[in-house]
Amino acid sequence: MRHYDLIVLGAGSGNMLLTEELGHFRTAIVEPDLFGGTCLNRGCIPSKMFVLAADAAEDARAAKRLGVHASIAPVDWKTVRDRVFSRIDPLHGSAVDYRRKNSIDVYTEEAYFIAPKVVQVGDERITADTFVVAVGSRPAVPHIPGLDSVPYHTSDTIMRIDELPTSMIVLGGGFIAAEFGHVFGAFGTDVTIVQRGPRLLMTEDKQVSARFTELASRRHRVLLGARATSVQPRGGSVAVTVRGRHGEQILEADLLLVCTGRRPNTDRLQALTGGLELDEHGHIATDNAYRTSVPGVWALEDAANHFQLKHMANAETRLVRHNILHPEDVRTLTNKVAPHAVFTSPQIASVGLTEQHARRHGIDYRVGVRAYADTAYGWALEDTTSFVKILGDPAERAILGAHIIGPQAATLIQPLIQAMTMGLTADQVGRDVLYIHPALTEVVEQALLAL
Amino acid sequence: MRHYDLIVLGAGSGNMLLTEELGHFRTAIVEPDLFGGTCLNRGCIPSKMFVLAADAAEDARAAKRLGVHASIAPVDWKTVRDRVFSRIDPLHGSAVDYRRKNSIDVYTEEAYFIAPKVVQVGDERITADTFVVAVGSRPAVPHIPGLDSVPYHTSDTIMRIDELPTSMIVLGGGFIAAEFGHVFGAFGTDVTIVQRGPRLLMTEDKQVSARFTELASRRHRVLLGARATSVQPRGGSVAVTVRGRHGEQILEADLLLVCTGRRPNTDRLQALTGGLELDEHGHIATDNAYRTSVPGVWALEDAANHFQLKHMANAETRLVRHNILHPEDVRTLTNKVAPHAVFTSPQIASVGLTEQHARRHGIDYRVGVRAYADTAYGWALEDTTSFVKILGDPAERAILGAHIIGPQAATLIQPLIQAMTMGLTADQVGRDVLYIHPALTEVVEQALLAL
Repeated sequence: MRHYDLIVLGAGSGNMLLTEELGHFRTAIVEPDLFGGTCLNRGCIPSKMFVLAADAAEDARAAKRLGVHASIAPVDWKTVRDRVFSRIDPLHGSAVDYRRKNSIDVYTEEAYFIAPKVVQVGDERITADTFVVAVGSRPAVPHIPGLDSVPYHTSDTIMRIDELPTSMIVLGGGFIAAEFGHVFGAFGTDVTIVQRGPRLLMTEDKQVSARFTELASRRHRVLLGARATSVQPRGGSVAVTVRGRHGEQILEADLLLVCTGRRPNTDRLQALTGGLELDEHGHIATDNAYRTSVPGVWALEDAANHFQLKHMANAETRLVRHNILHPEDVRTLTNKVAPHAVFTSPQIASVGLTEQHARRHGIDYRVGVRAYADTAYGWALEDTTSFVKILGDPAERAILGAHIIGPQAATLIQPLIQAMTMGLTADQVGRDVLYIHPALTEVVEQALLAL
Repeated sequence: MRHYDLIVLGAGSGNMLLTEELGHFRTAIVEPDLFGGTCLNRGCIPSKMFVLAADAAEDARAAKRLGVHASIAPVDWKTVRDRVFSRIDPLHGSAVDYRRKNSIDVYTEEAYFIAPKVVQVGDERITADTFVVAVGSRPAVPHIPGLDSVPYHTSDTIMRIDELPTSMIVLGGGFIAAEFGHVFGAFGTDVTIVQRGPRLLMTEDKQVSARFTELASRRHRVLLGARATSVQPRGGSVAVTVRGRHGEQILEADLLLVCTGRRPNTDRLQALTGGLELDEHGHIATDNAYRTSVPGVWALEDAANHFQLKHMANAETRLVRHNILHPEDVRTLTNKVAPHAVFTSPQIASVGLTEQHARRHGIDYRVGVRAYADTAYGWALEDTTSFVKILGDPAERAILGAHIIGPQAATLIQPLIQAMTMGLTADQVGRDVLYIHPALTEVVEQALLAL
């Protein structure tokens, strides 16, 4: 049984953990799939490459409102796809080579605990003083009768298909559904979204969620309050029986995409056998320092929490690295500001409290909302649907939350993330700081002043 | 001679001055041209509307790098132009009506001082306890033999021409030249830029200026170190004799656009007769509170300084309003952070020290530079030319300056403006604040960390 100082399970964020500072550790990294994990291979990065192509197509179509008339040739799916993966796929091999050159043992077989701090990987058993569990998550597939009888897709496989489907049914209305709806819609696929809840992007601020639902419904067929009750093959297509407000209907499409959530890979890891406590969703339970119930075992990212955000995983990675190196100075993640963005169309970005959360928890708040159209750049864009919404604390004047739907949302929100993190008040950021005229940032200034 | 409590000369920023707080003053506003001033009628706003159309055309052409092939119909200039001015032109009349309804006297004739605090406007003489001089600036036209013999344009007139020119010669290489070069280039005009200096946008950080010059030279004919020595009509065209490194050449084009700077309108105002001291460039001399040499007379914006930035004028307007209302609590503009952006292609934004300024003044600094391509979103964009450059103080870790060239530059720079204004260090903003992955803001984070 080979013994290491450090075993890292999972080479997504786990691979980022291994900087020179840990160079003196005898280290192994275990990754049965691809280095780079979900983010690089099946998540953030390739999806954004498709989204940018989709944005380009939609922007070109929309340019006519500015007097620029563009016609778009049918999108050559294979070219777009191959451009994406010809850039991504070589990265796995070079990452493995790089680790091996730096005397880190790389295991590429499936791994699972057979006892606390003992892992079976292929034919070998390995153990270590310190473990970092970063095995990530995978799409959760719901139990729908007949689903296994059709070749359905998830976010793991949809980006690598061979032909652009003429039509597509998307089960789910969260951020993955919203992003792929945008991509395939922009590329010319007829998209139907089947969503159980009353709106799309239910976890966003209600006003953003409502606006997005309205805009998505102009582009796609969106069925709300609807549930898929069975699936069957029909010729080369897929038929989905959907029950909703208006009774039952049968939808048919070339392709079925299931985007109904994700689950941590802690089951495959046999985390319980490893002595690790799990929460009710299967995440490894950790404290704020990312310590698990087994001393010397740390867990982070999708395996340990709900964020499903690479920038949170990066922060966790830095923290765990510090804590491993400085057992005398263990730090905790105190930053409660967890921003996120949805790269759909229009773009959405959010940080902090939503209005519905504030209400539900009886938190006193004020709201400032500004339409892009109220500022020079938004007016020039002839934008009619985008806005910035900011929640503030009426007493302390702190910024409690910010929600943006519209072009550049993921960029526009950064000063608000910064203000919340650094404890700057809405007045300081709105009044003392200058905003370039006529940049789009003026809408943030105006929302702060409205507050 | 009619007497007022307050006379505002100029209805650009001057018009913004008149909020309800000044409602108890008997007030007159004097504007021989259009309410809204340069920004609304001949500057920021209409130019950005043209720029957005140009961006849309260029983005559609560039989408092929992402696998989206668009073809652009020839841009219908008149449609674009009329869309812009059909939205802007009605605003003057409604602004005048609004002021008159609110009991403010509006004078629409040319006005000039005939003595300190006495203004001749048409046949009338008016006077006031308090004056605010906000008469703005206009294009400065150089003395070039023959220039008056051709129908040349400036930024005042170029946006209202009737036909898109086939070819255009631009004299000057500053921000106005850079923006109109982009607009007309994107619309299909063959653009030649004649610039005296060794680069375009000479006041930008040298690295940004050099990159922009390189990129602009791919789109336009750019003559550097070149000087127009004479101009003559030639048929329906304009011929410009240019002397430069490679001797003398004669350029010919449909249209000549002169963008060689702006000068304050203090001469037309006969500011000296009004007792106002001027600086060597013709700006009215003020202290930091915007008091002039005549008690009770305030001056701001292009009439009083070099910023030529509407967001600076807005800040000055708020300050002067406060100072007029609170003579016991006169405030000064302490904010030295004066950001700006150039809405050319690629976009440019800047705040604080340039590297050449730091060197020239012996200021100790460190530099962090990151290419967009080094981050996920930039990589997905297949960007190869954009970057963020940050100058920091090695001792205090303060941010001294930031310079961005690339998509969304004017939005991306906002957190850095905020950090500089609020005195946050590069470490705080780079390490303590989260940046959404994979948003474009990660390039700002990376530049801060590189620093």
